[in-house]
Amino acid sequence: MPVRILGLDPGLRHTGWGVIEKENTRLRFIAAGVINPDETRSLSDRLAELYEQLHQVIENFSPDEAAVEETFVNKNPTSTLKLGQARGVVLLVPALKGLRVAEYTPNQIKKMIVGAGHADKNQVDMMVRTLLKTVPEHIPPDASDALAIALCHGFMRQTLGGLVRR
Amino acid sequence: MPVRILGLDPGLRHTGWGVIEKENTRLRFIAAGVINPDETRSLSDRLAELYEQLHQVIENFSPDEAAVEETFVNKNPTSTLKLGQARGVVLLVPALKGLRVAEYTPNQIKKMIVGAGHADKNQVDMMVRTLLKTVPEHIPPDASDALAIALCHGFMRQTLGGLVRR
Repeated sequence: MPVRILGLDPGLRHTGWGVIEKENTRLRFIAAGVINPDETRSLSDRLAELYEQLHQVIENFSPDEAAVEETFVNKNPTSTLKLGQARGVVLLVPALKGLRVAEYTPNQIKKMIVGAGHADKNQVDMMVRTLLKTVPEHIPPDASDALAIALCHGFMRQTLGGLVRR
Repeated sequence: MPVRILGLDPGLRHTGWGVIEKENTRLRFIAAGVINPDETRSLSDRLAELYEQLHQVIENFSPDEAAVEETFVNKNPTSTLKLGQARGVVLLVPALKGLRVAEYTPNQIKKMIVGAGHADKNQVDMMVRTLLKTVPEHIPPDASDALAIALCHGFMRQTLGGLVRR
């Protein structure tokens, strides 16, 4: 049975999402994109827009499991709070749909995809394209990051880490 | 026409809520409580529990407007992130219901209720009980704080501040 995985890279301005399918060792690209809530709206309305668009992604692609990047804790408390607010909504929506939500740190993701925790964004993007052959050329960086998170969960989901971190 | 106001004091462990009614200068206590998501569950499930209970409060008491405390930015980034995640859900739910969501800082709230930005929790609680005569004696502190936020919005909602901060 193939499993569909939704990867999510949360942010108040840009939340990347990517859906892959995994059957044994076979990996397949399904879809990816970025949610950009209207910055001229109030904070609560931006969060509602993020909620509604993410809800739509789950309706459209019916993932079985979700994985979210465990946020790098910024040194600026105001940015951390903003990120936390978006992340709260991003963790919430798949849980409301009954999906298991795993979390991985950026280092775990890089190490799993490239083999090195200090890999840069380009290396991660290249490996995402190597592993998932049909990724469109011009997807935004946040969408590619979300695919990397989905891939990481694809590799980790049956390990102790993937099972415990729910 | 009376207006019903929902005050919210967000937190991942405890989110206080309080509903008041205001008609001209007349204030009335409607209900208050605290949402305590099960701490043994995963983060995403705790956020889903917060979402569902807050949704139920809005269904039960049909507020017209909401007001949320603008979070004190903690010096510990991990706590700030946790608070941000809960706050994201707390700002989201009333917005999804089409409610206007105002935000006030703790100092604005204390100054409005007690007359001094450095007032302590006991002074705020005493004033909440003086303004809303029928508040039950043993409501938890987070519920009393939420009533103070609702009262602050009751006084501020027609000022420029209350109108702009949506």
